[in-house]
Amino acid sequence: MIKMIALYKQPEDKEKFDEHYYNVHSPITAKIPGLKKMEVTKIVGTPMGKESEYYLLCEMYYESHEAFKEAMKTDEAKASGKDVMQFAGDLVTMMIGEEVNE
Amino acid sequence: MIKMIALYKQPEDKEKFDEHYYNVHSPITAKIPGLKKMEVTKIVGTPMGKESEYYLLCEMYYESHEAFKEAMKTDEAKASGKDVMQFAGDLVTMMIGEEVNE
Repeated sequence: MIKMIALYKQPEDKEKFDEHYYNVHSPITAKIPGLKKMEVTKIVGTPMGKESEYYLLCEMYYESHEAFKEAMKTDEAKASGKDVMQFAGDLVTMMIGEEVNE
Repeated sequence: MIKMIALYKQPEDKEKFDEHYYNVHSPITAKIPGLKKMEVTKIVGTPMGKESEYYLLCEMYYESHEAFKEAMKTDEAKASGKDVMQFAGDLVTMMIGEEVNE
């Protein structure tokens, strides 16, 4: 499977971030056609016991690169992309990944 | 579940990195007691069609923070930690995360 990965740095206002992320952004994103699974991970620190530079990791799974490209053309994907840039454009790093089967 | 996340930046020599990662580091890490699942993702680009700053994401799952802490005390975890610092200490960012169930 293919993953779109969104990695967010620590926001200044965590409460405001969470409020928007879980109540607005996540529901918009969940509607993207072709999205197979969405996994959200809250970053709670580093193995050295420090605060991480990062706050949240979201992984959105698609069947294939082709399915992902088709999904990105939809109004739902455009709405999600617009929303993320508005509320967290300065915090987010986006990556596309391929699952490695060992 | 709890995840240890290792995010690697692009190595200078990808072939050398892959050789060590898949043949040496990954087998050492897979032996850590308490490790429930290991998911490796190869980063292939960004949604904008550019090369990502990042190369590889590895997610190692444990049942709980307690199980993770116990695992980190083992010789296998120490060997894995020593190995990663030797071959990719300048490339890797480590994070601890909690799965969010929505």
